[in-house]
Amino acid sequence: MLIRIGHELIFEVPRPTPMLLMLYVHPDAARALRQPEAIQADPVGAVESFVDWFGNRAARIVAPAGTLRLRYDNVVEDTGRPEPTIEGLRLRSVADLPPECCRYLLASRYCEVDRMSAIAWDLFGKTPETWERVRAVVDWVHDNVTFGYQFSRPTKTAFDVFTERQGVCRDFQHLAITFLRALNVPARYATGYLGDIGVPRDPNPMDFSAWLEAYLGDAWYTLDARHNQPRIGRVLMGRGRDAVDVALTTSFGRTTLTGFTVWTELAA
Amino acid sequence: MLIRIGHELIFEVPRPTPMLLMLYVHPDAARALRQPEAIQADPVGAVESFVDWFGNRAARIVAPAGTLRLRYDNVVEDTGRPEPTIEGLRLRSVADLPPECCRYLLASRYCEVDRMSAIAWDLFGKTPETWERVRAVVDWVHDNVTFGYQFSRPTKTAFDVFTERQGVCRDFQHLAITFLRALNVPARYATGYLGDIGVPRDPNPMDFSAWLEAYLGDAWYTLDARHNQPRIGRVLMGRGRDAVDVALTTSFGRTTLTGFTVWTELAA
Amino acid sequence: MLIRIGHELIFEVPRPTPMLLMLYVHPDAARALRQPEAIQADPVGAVESFVDWFGNRAARIVAPAGTLRLRYDNVVEDTGRPEPTIEGLRLRSVADLPPECCRYLLASRYCEVDRMSAIAWDLFGKTPETWERVRAVVDWVHDNVTFGYQFSRPTKTAFDVFTERQGVCRDFQHLAITFLRALNVPARYATGYLGDIGVPRDPNPMDFSAWLEAYLGDAWYTLDARHNQPRIGRVLMGRGRDAVDVALTTSFGRTTLTGFTVWTELAA
Amino acid sequence: MLIRIGHELIFEVPRPTPMLLMLYVHPDAARALRQPEAIQADPVGAVESFVDWFGNRAARIVAPAGTLRLRYDNVVEDTGRPEPTIEGLRLRSVADLPPECCRYLLASRYCEVDRMSAIAWDLFGKTPETWERVRAVVDWVHDNVTFGYQFSRPTKTAFDVFTERQGVCRDFQHLAITFLRALNVPARYATGYLGDIGVPRDPNPMDFSAWLEAYLGDAWYTLDARHNQPRIGRVLMGRGRDAVDVALTTSFGRTTLTGFTVWTELAA
Repeated sequence: MLIRIGHELIFEVPRPTPMLLMLYVHPDAARALRQPEAIQADPVGAVESFVDWFGNRAARIVAPAGTLRLRYDNVVEDTGRPEPTIEGLRLRSVADLPPECCRYLLASRYCEVDRMSAIAWDLFGKTPETWERVRAVVDWVHDNVTFGYQFSRPTKTAFDVFTERQGVCRDFQHLAITFLRALNVPARYATGYLGDIGVPRDPNPMDFSAWLEAYLGDAWYTLDARHNQPRIGRVLMGRGRDAVDVALTTSFGRTTLTGFTVWTELAA
Repeated sequence: MLIRIGHELIFEVPRPTPMLLMLYVHPDAARALRQPEAIQADPVGAVESFVDWFGNRAARIVAPAGTLRLRYDNVVEDTGRPEPTIEGLRLRSVADLPPECCRYLLASRYCEVDRMSAIAWDLFGKTPETWERVRAVVDWVHDNVTFGYQFSRPTKTAFDVFTERQGVCRDFQHLAITFLRALNVPARYATGYLGDIGVPRDPNPMDFSAWLEAYLGDAWYTLDARHNQPRIGRVLMGRGRDAVDVALTTSFGRTTLTGFTVWTELAA
Repeated sequence: MLIRIGHELIFEVPRPTPMLLMLYVHPDAARALRQPEAIQADPVGAVESFVDWFGNRAARIVAPAGTLRLRYDNVVEDTGRPEPTIEGLRLRSVADLPPECCRYLLASRYCEVDRMSAIAWDLFGKTPETWERVRAVVDWVHDNVTFGYQFSRPTKTAFDVFTERQGVCRDFQHLAITFLRALNVPARYATGYLGDIGVPRDPNPMDFSAWLEAYLGDAWYTLDARHNQPRIGRVLMGRGRDAVDVALTTSFGRTTLTGFTVWTELAA
Repeated sequence: MLIRIGHELIFEVPRPTPMLLMLYVHPDAARALRQPEAIQADPVGAVESFVDWFGNRAARIVAPAGTLRLRYDNVVEDTGRPEPTIEGLRLRSVADLPPECCRYLLASRYCEVDRMSAIAWDLFGKTPETWERVRAVVDWVHDNVTFGYQFSRPTKTAFDVFTERQGVCRDFQHLAITFLRALNVPARYATGYLGDIGVPRDPNPMDFSAWLEAYLGDAWYTLDARHNQPRIGRVLMGRGRDAVDVALTTSFGRTTLTGFTVWTELAA
């Protein structure tokens, strides 16, 4: 199955401004791409990329004053199968986790594990110490938080989501990640493309999406506290502790996003 | 100059509990050690160490139920000179920072760069875009925050420090780091030993200390918003985005610290 | 000058729900009304009112399941002159304020005076201890906060406004009130009708508005950190410590606002 | 039964400073006093009192530069019986509460009812809609929060107590009050003397105490989420929405408390 993916972002830039971009497909997913990757940055010209410490491919540009247009287009081959589920998997003790998982047990900007630990144990302390605990967390967030674009704001943390019970996809994942870490389950934040293959058409415009990965058994598994069902055709772009680490663009100065188009659909 | 360093921590552990330890000297500083490094963990026995993604040397143990005693002792050779100052250094544009510095521009658990950006520019936006801006930040924090052990709490963030104007050494650094990042200066959190060589004797008991590192010119420089003067004899243990990343010990279950001794003094 | 004022609010109510309404004109302003006051609550019938401890006229109903329609319409006579300015007035010492003003020096839900005191003195401590200090606060808020309906949220406090620098009219007032109280100037929150008499037509739909009152000399003076100019035709509905005390409607159970129309314009 | 009550507070005052004092016995409790009330304020001289809008007796002084000594001593007659319990009482619907109770349903500085509403209904929504709901709230707070003087801080809110699970008596009450209001039960904050009559001697020094009052049936009932048992010999000093309204002393300028003694014990 071939999926066409891409995006076009347009910014107004009042004065030359450095920007970090995380707009490539993640190196782990890039072998399924049909074309070489390139960000067309108009009028910047060549874009140099590097791999950050999370393993994401990132770029850095200096946007000149004026209109900046960033464009990416590619085709990715997908298995066409829904992602695996976690049924039957065991939780790993912190004592025998791979060391590199430990970093995903800690608090981060949007995931206040320290403040939410007692709450997490109140809510989930009596669930079985297996995949069912992870399931319970993701179900709880899915069932108790209401989706709405108007509920988005840049400073919103897991704790805010817990009290306001409203948010966008990133907020759902932050809350679930925070609960999981408080329960000693490594959990990380992921972002990428997610179309509507195999599901009723979503009335929302196509957009980037966020999900999460939790470590069970011997691997990281994809979970999605917003949609809460296995999906076909996720294309990973970035992973990190939370949304701070995988912002699509980070401007070091004032810029204004004036155009935003994302596509992800079955290639004709 | 030889400095003897070490510590002894005692915990009561109600049931077997995994723990992460960051109690070694940092690999960058370890070449000055006179003895091989070892954490004596009684009654755990052998302790296995690994290097985390920040470059810190960490260990993981499972503390059995009962009393846990962690002990470390060593001698380190020091130049005997105060650390270099930042006078005259230039600030780097984000556009030409080494890519690995970029991670230290972002928000983290205790450093809410996103929420404090406007405040930072209000306070420091008119300072020269040189080392003097960094100096102004560190001076401001030093002058406006009152030190006191009773002001410490685990959930305290840079933002709390800004409003309460009270804290311990970690709080001073978190606030300065947050301002620096908001001003596009890479800043990271450091922890280690700091004695009183060359300064009037501090009435406080010897303790671990926190400081910060900022990137100017072509290197990271040590700054300390609490003491705010060049010091002799800092021995680095860990570096990270903030205190989350370099907690001396992280317990995945309930443990109680019942003994805490740190030493760092001129070797006889 | 005659101004026609009124509103129609429509709610969907899933089950019988008690509601508090603060939809009358304030008793201090009611003598200028041309008609007796009445809230038409359909299908509730008679609405009983009482005066709350702030001196506001309030009502309480039990909304039955179904659609609730609240309607108010009246005509008020206005002097046609802009409200007085504070130029030349002296600040009162806390020592000789009328006792009933003291309550408006304290912290409240949306005005965290305790947390913002140091910030207020940093920003305004060097202004003259006269009406100019009040002017400086209101100007600062007006100049540093950006208006936008999308920035509204029910839990937003003065502190949030200070860090996010965005909000609706209530947010502007909360921030200014908090600064004023921190500077020992009594300040209270006010809500009511505000049309566009004498000003360029506002592109926003007519709405209720919030402003503030500060105590200078021997009286309370109207100030408005959002519009920041003397206006003609404010019609007071409620006063309180902050928006908590003068919510137009408070539902003790889930209700959904489905219609909202406000009018305030020169009577033909 | 006669109880001797009183206190002595000593402040260092760097420059003349207005202060509000709430150091009298509450007018509702004052008829049981054996002596006329007086605050000896040395060197202020005469102290003028007024009744605030909550019905508390308050005073205002201007403390001159130097040492300020405030002293109060009295004897109060007590019934010697524990306060009544709430067993069997019904909860009132918001629809038929006395109007003056409604103010105690709203959010206040330390009681973020708006942010904690969903949490309160999660925890207590399935309890019977009777006195047992109130009992469940008070028991939950008592059982889940740990007492310790070191956990006190001036900015601590109910929400902080909920996440940190630690606090002093005022923190216990703030959390219980917030839950009760979220559940539509009027609840207010009270402060006063509380000795150890009829209970094992408390190892803590005598101190002022905080408790709460909730409206059930046709009256306000005393509850205490910290001690959680009926007590003998509470002497009420002040009531309000939360601790903001009944601070023992509020200084409008910097003062330092250097001495603090409270007595409340059976008169010989």
